[in-house]
Amino acid sequence: MKGVWSFVGLAILCGVFCSGIEAQKLDKGVGPYGEFWKPIPTQRYWAPNYFYSPPEEPKGVYQADECTLCHKALNPGLVKAWEESSHANLDKLLDYQKEKLAEIEKNLGRKLTKVGCIDCHGKVGAEKLDHEKELAMPSPALCGECHKQEYQEFESEKQYGIPDWKPGRESHAKAYDANLDVDVWAAVDKNIVQGCDMCHSIQHKCDSCHTRHAFKASESRRPEACQTCHNGPDHPDIEFYRDSKHGSIYLIDGKNWDWNKPLKDAKYISPTCQSCHMYYKGQYSHNMVRKAIMGEGDVLFYDNVFKGIKPTDYLKNSKELMSRREAWIEVCVQCHSPRFSRDYLDSMDKASDSVFQYVSDAYATIKSLYEEGILSPMPENRPKAPAPVAEKYPDLLGGFYGEFWAKNGNQSRIEKDFLYMWENDAFLVRKGLAHMNPNGFTYISWSNLLKKYVDIQSEANALRRLAALEKKKLRARTKTKNR
Amino acid sequence: MKGVWSFVGLAILCGVFCSGIEAQKLDKGVGPYGEFWKPIPTQRYWAPNYFYSPPEEPKGVYQADECTLCHKALNPGLVKAWEESSHANLDKLLDYQKEKLAEIEKNLGRKLTKVGCIDCHGKVGAEKLDHEKELAMPSPALCGECHKQEYQEFESEKQYGIPDWKPGRESHAKAYDANLDVDVWAAVDKNIVQGCDMCHSIQHKCDSCHTRHAFKASESRRPEACQTCHNGPDHPDIEFYRDSKHGSIYLIDGKNWDWNKPLKDAKYISPTCQSCHMYYKGQYSHNMVRKAIMGEGDVLFYDNVFKGIKPTDYLKNSKELMSRREAWIEVCVQCHSPRFSRDYLDSMDKASDSVFQYVSDAYATIKSLYEEGILSPMPENRPKAPAPVAEKYPDLLGGFYGEFWAKNGNQSRIEKDFLYMWENDAFLVRKGLAHMNPNGFTYISWSNLLKKYVDIQSEANALRRLAALEKKKLRARTKTKNR
Amino acid sequence: MKGVWSFVGLAILCGVFCSGIEAQKLDKGVGPYGEFWKPIPTQRYWAPNYFYSPPEEPKGVYQADECTLCHKALNPGLVKAWEESSHANLDKLLDYQKEKLAEIEKNLGRKLTKVGCIDCHGKVGAEKLDHEKELAMPSPALCGECHKQEYQEFESEKQYGIPDWKPGRESHAKAYDANLDVDVWAAVDKNIVQGCDMCHSIQHKCDSCHTRHAFKASESRRPEACQTCHNGPDHPDIEFYRDSKHGSIYLIDGKNWDWNKPLKDAKYISPTCQSCHMYYKGQYSHNMVRKAIMGEGDVLFYDNVFKGIKPTDYLKNSKELMSRREAWIEVCVQCHSPRFSRDYLDSMDKASDSVFQYVSDAYATIKSLYEEGILSPMPENRPKAPAPVAEKYPDLLGGFYGEFWAKNGNQSRIEKDFLYMWENDAFLVRKGLAHMNPNGFTYISWSNLLKKYVDIQSEANALRRLAALEKKKLRARTKTKNR
Repeated sequence: MKGVWSFVGLAILCGVFCSGIEAQKLDKGVGPYGEFWKPIPTQRYWAPNYFYSPPEEPKGVYQADECTLCHKALNPGLVKAWEESSHANLDKLLDYQKEKLAEIEKNLGRKLTKVGCIDCHGKVGAEKLDHEKELAMPSPALCGECHKQEYQEFESEKQYGIPDWKPGRESHAKAYDANLDVDVWAAVDKNIVQGCDMCHSIQHKCDSCHTRHAFKASESRRPEACQTCHNGPDHPDIEFYRDSKHGSIYLIDGKNWDWNKPLKDAKYISPTCQSCHMYYKGQYSHNMVRKAIMGEGDVLFYDNVFKGIKPTDYLKNSKELMSRREAWIEVCVQCHSPRFSRDYLDSMDKASDSVFQYVSDAYATIKSLYEEGILSPMPENRPKAPAPVAEKYPDLLGGFYGEFWAKNGNQSRIEKDFLYMWENDAFLVRKGLAHMNPNGFTYISWSNLLKKYVDIQSEANALRRLAALEKKKLRARTKTKNR
Repeated sequence: MKGVWSFVGLAILCGVFCSGIEAQKLDKGVGPYGEFWKPIPTQRYWAPNYFYSPPEEPKGVYQADECTLCHKALNPGLVKAWEESSHANLDKLLDYQKEKLAEIEKNLGRKLTKVGCIDCHGKVGAEKLDHEKELAMPSPALCGECHKQEYQEFESEKQYGIPDWKPGRESHAKAYDANLDVDVWAAVDKNIVQGCDMCHSIQHKCDSCHTRHAFKASESRRPEACQTCHNGPDHPDIEFYRDSKHGSIYLIDGKNWDWNKPLKDAKYISPTCQSCHMYYKGQYSHNMVRKAIMGEGDVLFYDNVFKGIKPTDYLKNSKELMSRREAWIEVCVQCHSPRFSRDYLDSMDKASDSVFQYVSDAYATIKSLYEEGILSPMPENRPKAPAPVAEKYPDLLGGFYGEFWAKNGNQSRIEKDFLYMWENDAFLVRKGLAHMNPNGFTYISWSNLLKKYVDIQSEANALRRLAALEKKKLRARTKTKNR
Repeated sequence: MKGVWSFVGLAILCGVFCSGIEAQKLDKGVGPYGEFWKPIPTQRYWAPNYFYSPPEEPKGVYQADECTLCHKALNPGLVKAWEESSHANLDKLLDYQKEKLAEIEKNLGRKLTKVGCIDCHGKVGAEKLDHEKELAMPSPALCGECHKQEYQEFESEKQYGIPDWKPGRESHAKAYDANLDVDVWAAVDKNIVQGCDMCHSIQHKCDSCHTRHAFKASESRRPEACQTCHNGPDHPDIEFYRDSKHGSIYLIDGKNWDWNKPLKDAKYISPTCQSCHMYYKGQYSHNMVRKAIMGEGDVLFYDNVFKGIKPTDYLKNSKELMSRREAWIEVCVQCHSPRFSRDYLDSMDKASDSVFQYVSDAYATIKSLYEEGILSPMPENRPKAPAPVAEKYPDLLGGFYGEFWAKNGNQSRIEKDFLYMWENDAFLVRKGLAHMNPNGFTYISWSNLLKKYVDIQSEANALRRLAALEKKKLRARTKTKNR
């Protein structure tokens, strides 16, 4: 082993040499705003389906069993991870995995002894690979050649999403394309917004959850498997889960649970992300968007604010959402009484109405300032956001683009507060309730929501007073002139 | 097992049917402000002593051994948790638990083979239960029928609390009633402030720490058992512990410790929440409020700000608090030198004086604006908080009610900053020190405190300048008129 | 054991008695600003090399084997921790530890049976100790008498640090002295800024990472060993790691890894703090500052803002930093392709340029307000920071001193926002990228950076409008007078 690691130095030389080469696929962007941006080199890895091309070095055609000869020296860590995988140990599978293997072999029409580098980075079953031309980053479709059911489940998310929105939005299976639809993402430095890509890449990469190259199912069944994307100010899922009673029990007791069991057999005494979100009407699957209303922040506390539709009305008028709610209740009932489950989720909706009221009031304040010409600066007097961001009303009064771009008064602080109010805090009250995290929806989200509401009212007050003073002054000056 | 889970669908039907029924106990609130609010359905579960009544379905009388027949299908998770409990496995107890059992049996005057659903959800030792009429959510008093000592220890908290405050405030044993005493809690949407209930329910529910239905003592001895309530911006106990050296050692090494041992025998090499907070003069108990000064934020950095009493003076003049301090030092000395322990806690008090100075200065600024009529809006020109919130001086200048309610300038941002300053940051400097978390009291709390102090001073400056301009303008206008 | 613990009460008496005594070494500060401050008692423990002196009690000379007689009763926790240490169990060492022991014994010229209290708190190999006169807190130099190589590696950090800065700044090995160089640290209440000491004490205390008294190497190899210092708003290293995919794998799988192996043999399938930061060109050592650019916030986004040098230019013009980068890439390549590794770190630099632009724009705004006399209050009209803080341009426009001290407009909120912008957010975009935490550099840091940028622009706008109004008013008044 030691010898292997000492080869690293040599291998680096190759790496350094290879690294300067740009693949031609990086010439232009893709998606509706593709003309406005150019990919950066790392996007080859975030969206390999769109941008990947092999490095120029090494050249040559390699046999399937030659890969590790070099990569064990060059990247010992990744080879070691693969050596720990089921792919490398098809003879040591668990019973349920053996059944899966038998099915895969039946589909492929041949026996498998191992799944090696070339099967995923070239073609399934390939015997050799032209490194410079054929090397590929595996996509869900490629994984799906063996893992058919899982792939189909994952792809089926494309049929779900937010009612009245494009199908599959929001879903994991169209996450990257959702990114491409965002004007401000297209507009700003890709070195920054590749942060969006790193999560939204899940459309192109099964290893978002099943981390390479060990791909342990036991790992992807753990809440931590979700946390790299599902954390932070706009979706603190893992934070809310971790500190909830559900999460606390997991943290204390989880290490004693059998993570090798498929979810349907595991039945932990406390839920995980997976055991709730992958469950739907008695089954567990890779379609995780059939119960919850994804993107609630955008619909409940933004779109609907402009329409004046409060959450309980919106929800109860949607047959689809009401049916998802019933499926949600079924999850809770596994451990809680049906009366409690229903009452609790009802209270989440009613709480959302209170949130909605504050967001609507804040918006009304800003809208009124805008209509009276008191915003400072007014949209016409400030820099425009770069193309393709189209600043259309009401989006120009605190729209999402302000999350990633700002310039000299666009946005001003009152609109930025509003942006955070609907984009983060409002939704998080609901999310805190959904994840049974009491601080999550009170001292964290509700308090933050009120803080911004307060700042908005005080700022509006100051803007009005300044405008009034300037008006008097102007009038005075005019009078003086006219005297 | 599989068969059992497939019954869920059927069982749901019952749940759905039962859920529409409102118990009559939800008619009116309780406590000093009971007339101002009406409970929501979920409060049946947060304060069962006050609001619980059984669902209308199922009807009928059930024998003790019939419960799991239905609930195994309806709520398999909770039955599974119970099956893992000591209650279900009285034949597999640890030695110290056997002693406890013997004592319990002696008190009850009979042998126990198991503790089942009916014992806790009906009456201890009951043989049958009229589900529609007799089903109950267990209270500490009910748990105390068997667990006498633990119950008595828990109840004994009612004699402690903050000197000069109501007895038992702050304590776990009167936590829910403390909630009921808060005017703003009574005033706002219960669907939001049930977040307060979910923690303050500890007065009514032993399963806040001993989570149902496994009730593992080994779980309740872990810091994570406390975290669902003890986290967040106003009391980041678990956050401060986790990142402290104490917590780091626990996180690394804790899984190797024997959590089945009672605290008095365990003697971990790093403290947990329990090993410090349950300790008092050589004993461990369920009374956790005999050493620390609970509610410090309210006393040290709010009440005393108005009185002008700085922390070191307040503390050294209280015989009771000085005696608690001595008990606190005893805990530290288990691992640290007495000189270090004493000096360190002294430095926490002296640091509190520095905090106090900033809070007092900020308050003086706001008070002065108020007296000069420069707050904007002035209390008389803004919406009143809903009853029963009584906006009395000094509470109207940044009082606690602003944490949960706001409307158009009540509170304005300068008062909101002050609220967060005393309610969160000030106290957290002290808490960070108490939990030996260096960032906790510097870059987190002290910095946040100064940030708000700075915002308050700058806002005061802007308010004064605006007022001065408006006054001149007014004067000018008056002069013009009088000319 | 029980008997031992009941002695605590007695032992406390001694502690209480001893605690009133101040050591003479606490008379005055040390370092360049030593004349401006006096140490507090706890600093004896944060910087024992400078301030420690033994307590007056107990008096007398004790034999090596007498220590635990008393301390087992007085501080059972610390004795228990020592009993778990390798120091107490030299007969149960792992193979690689036996080799180390043999080497140590060769250097000392004698066999060791155990390493006891007196060896570290007195002199290595001492047989007795005059408690009142000779008791010492061990320094790295003392640990280095046995652990030569580790000590030398640690000390070697003093030769590294930020190019063009004092050698060893930033390094662990000169961390406390770096503290002493900070004017605001010298100026403010030591009870507060001992929070800085508690981390910067690493210069004087190996037990910052190797926590006493068990000193388990298996513990110090875990990421949690770093977290007590490396967390929080100014350096959320552990937070960014924990939620990254690297950290998630560690959290899930790490407990199965063999922590008893030295890093060079361990080769985990996901990196830890240690496996990246202690690695340098094929070797692991206690010098952790040879790859990264420490203190980047101060250089890239502060010093260089005033000089107008953007990050990519600064980095590519430094031979030293470019060579560190190559060493950094070698770490990534252990698991990632060289092309990806290089491209990714390049994108981190390019992202830094975008950050730099916002910081520069914000600074230009504040500088312009300053030059026009519009800051409110202007530096000449506000309280001066206490000595030895020298408010020199540009530091007076949002310099570091504002992190720990504020008074009535010094700093004002626009400068405070700028301070947080360069000191926290700007750097954290880079840190989030470095630690592969997508939310870390987008919704957390980039968003926070833009929020402050926006607040600064809006505040500047308000300040300008107020100043313009006051100027008119003044002019009007002057005109009236002159009329």
